[in-house]
Amino acid sequence: MVKEKVIAQAQKAKEAARKLGHLSSAVKDKALMAMADALEARTDDILEANSIDMQAGREKKLSTALLDRLLLTNDRVKEMADGLRAIAALPDPVGEVIHMWKRPNGLQIGKIRVPVGVIGLIYEARPNVTVDAAGLCLKTGNAVLLRGGSEAFNSNKRIAEIIADAATSAGIPAGAIQLIETTDREAVNVMLKLNEYIDILIPRGGAGLIQTVVQNATVPVIETGVGNCHVYIDNEADLDMAMNIVINAKTQRPGVCNAMETLLVHEEVADKVLPPLLNKLRDEYNVEIRGCEKTKAIVPWVKDATEEDYYTEFLDLILAVKVVRDMDEAIDHIYKYGTKHSEAIITNNYNKSRRFTEEVDAAAVYVNASTRFTDGFQFGYGAEIGISTQKLHARGPMGLPELTTTKYIIFGNGQVRG
Amino acid sequence: MVKEKVIAQAQKAKEAARKLGHLSSAVKDKALMAMADALEARTDDILEANSIDMQAGREKKLSTALLDRLLLTNDRVKEMADGLRAIAALPDPVGEVIHMWKRPNGLQIGKIRVPVGVIGLIYEARPNVTVDAAGLCLKTGNAVLLRGGSEAFNSNKRIAEIIADAATSAGIPAGAIQLIETTDREAVNVMLKLNEYIDILIPRGGAGLIQTVVQNATVPVIETGVGNCHVYIDNEADLDMAMNIVINAKTQRPGVCNAMETLLVHEEVADKVLPPLLNKLRDEYNVEIRGCEKTKAIVPWVKDATEEDYYTEFLDLILAVKVVRDMDEAIDHIYKYGTKHSEAIITNNYNKSRRFTEEVDAAAVYVNASTRFTDGFQFGYGAEIGISTQKLHARGPMGLPELTTTKYIIFGNGQVRG
Repeated sequence: MVKEKVIAQAQKAKEAARKLGHLSSAVKDKALMAMADALEARTDDILEANSIDMQAGREKKLSTALLDRLLLTNDRVKEMADGLRAIAALPDPVGEVIHMWKRPNGLQIGKIRVPVGVIGLIYEARPNVTVDAAGLCLKTGNAVLLRGGSEAFNSNKRIAEIIADAATSAGIPAGAIQLIETTDREAVNVMLKLNEYIDILIPRGGAGLIQTVVQNATVPVIETGVGNCHVYIDNEADLDMAMNIVINAKTQRPGVCNAMETLLVHEEVADKVLPPLLNKLRDEYNVEIRGCEKTKAIVPWVKDATEEDYYTEFLDLILAVKVVRDMDEAIDHIYKYGTKHSEAIITNNYNKSRRFTEEVDAAAVYVNASTRFTDGFQFGYGAEIGISTQKLHARGPMGLPELTTTKYIIFGNGQVRG
Repeated sequence: MVKEKVIAQAQKAKEAARKLGHLSSAVKDKALMAMADALEARTDDILEANSIDMQAGREKKLSTALLDRLLLTNDRVKEMADGLRAIAALPDPVGEVIHMWKRPNGLQIGKIRVPVGVIGLIYEARPNVTVDAAGLCLKTGNAVLLRGGSEAFNSNKRIAEIIADAATSAGIPAGAIQLIETTDREAVNVMLKLNEYIDILIPRGGAGLIQTVVQNATVPVIETGVGNCHVYIDNEADLDMAMNIVINAKTQRPGVCNAMETLLVHEEVADKVLPPLLNKLRDEYNVEIRGCEKTKAIVPWVKDATEEDYYTEFLDLILAVKVVRDMDEAIDHIYKYGTKHSEAIITNNYNKSRRFTEEVDAAAVYVNASTRFTDGFQFGYGAEIGISTQKLHARGPMGLPELTTTKYIIFGNGQVRG
């Protein structure tokens, strides 16, 4: 029953996708603007649906953090609407001729950007992802199947209805934007295997959700998310800059994937930088510090760091610290414990900056800047569907082009192969 | 036991990959030349190992076609060696700065091409794939785990030893080129789940092999292969050109994925083009024709085409034919039965050429040329690891850049996020 419903929705998405790919940018942008207006016009409806989710969430004793992510307000609805308007203002990647050339036999070959088709998005509590994902997929000519978390089901359902209706009224084929209409977990299992109708799956959420998708999907997946990020303070670093960057990378928003989790410090500068830095992190930012033996020898109040701590993405005001012999040990540590997301070195040494960026294998490698910049907006993409932590198709912040694929078009005048 | 052996090989590959990514093009190219020389110098050894496989193949009563693919000769060994030399002569994609820009806050962001890491190649009988794949992966700085077909095990083993030794002697880290050292099928199952050590799997071979990999792998897969390709002859086509292209697309090499399987003909020109074309295909090229009712009304000796025939990649001298009302019916037919590989229209109508290339969703869409050109060499890439039939990462012929991924390197001078 659940299976049949999901398949029926996916079929409808595939039919819509076939038409969507050939719509002009003007039609898509007009629809995005109409969706934004509809969200604002129907704010009360959305808040009413959200209050049902909030009530249920409080009864289920969801954490304060989770309830805050679930909560919608007038301002937050307006932000979602403005997000759609910002997407409308971005250039349309579909139709871009990436490269075109002529072969000696006269064949003219062009590589053209085209929509992927149907994108399945599986995500957790935030209702704003519903709007974001729908907007980004529509802009890139893809149909989207949205599977949000059950905690936000009423909010997501109302939002999806409103934007899908607005889109259809503006000339977008019905079925282009659909929320999976059940909270039954079986629906996810069905989506994972729907190779016939879904072209790409993007999971967004905690490690458990992402691993479930990666381990069980036969549909190609873009893995997002886990970031066990490091900052390495070299012995040739500007220590004031280093402190500034560490504090920013750890505390500016600790619950996100590009926040720093482990600090590595060259032993020659450890006794100079660690006392003021760790004291400040503890006293002004309430960060719990877990360090190696050498760290504790310098700052005695630090707790023991376990092997496990170095593997952990805390997503919290907890920092692991390790004093290292040199940059090589730092790079080896990152290789062993890192998740290839975002890594930074603080140094004024030219050769070390080159070696670090060359030898550290990660989506984003920084010299003298905070890891917190790994983000589609910070990179100037104007949008972000997630941060890929895999190497296939997309790596790092994914903007609009990452939601497209390519096709070759070949123009001849009778060429045959000899 | 098999599992432990495969994991040990994969670990070694991962270690090698860490160093391989930072080798200069000069070192890699020198190694490729040394591998080529070693193959030629040890031709006798290779032919001896191949004769064991050939003997076993004859005893197992493999088909003549399969035995021919398995067979190595002096010339074929020389071709493999020349293939490596050609790869050495290609530009190295690793290190290419695809794009670099500066943000308003002064951060300089660059997107750089880097190796993927470890590539697992699972393939069937041809021993030349062993050399090709090893050469392409080495050129792009990737370690490769080769899992060839059991029929070619002795040939592959000898070849892999020779090229791996030559590579190591030329400065390539040991473990960069490895053949999985068992014919046990369990080895494939182990590879499919080795996310910790293998970054990408590329299956090359029949539909059964590819589906096994796609259905069971947790490692990201690049799907290759199945091509149910169509040629549509429009009512505004140059019919001589159309006949030429159809004959080429069907008969020049019928056993490959870019060969044509179904011919679609506009009803207005069917009675003019089908009799000479189908007679020629039958009489001069020994092609079996299976047609729709309308085809049979025009050419009575044609056999019945079943629904199943239109879904089938014959890979043989068999052609399905359907007379269609117009281009829309042709496009709908391709949408329903096609595998999104290579599709062609023969027309002199400008608007139809535009609509066909826009509306047909396939890796390669042709106007007035044979589908047989979907090939890395024909596209001018100088190499080919396979033809991707998926939309993620790579689509169509895959050359050297498709064996790489990217990373962002970000240069700052103390930037933190506000």
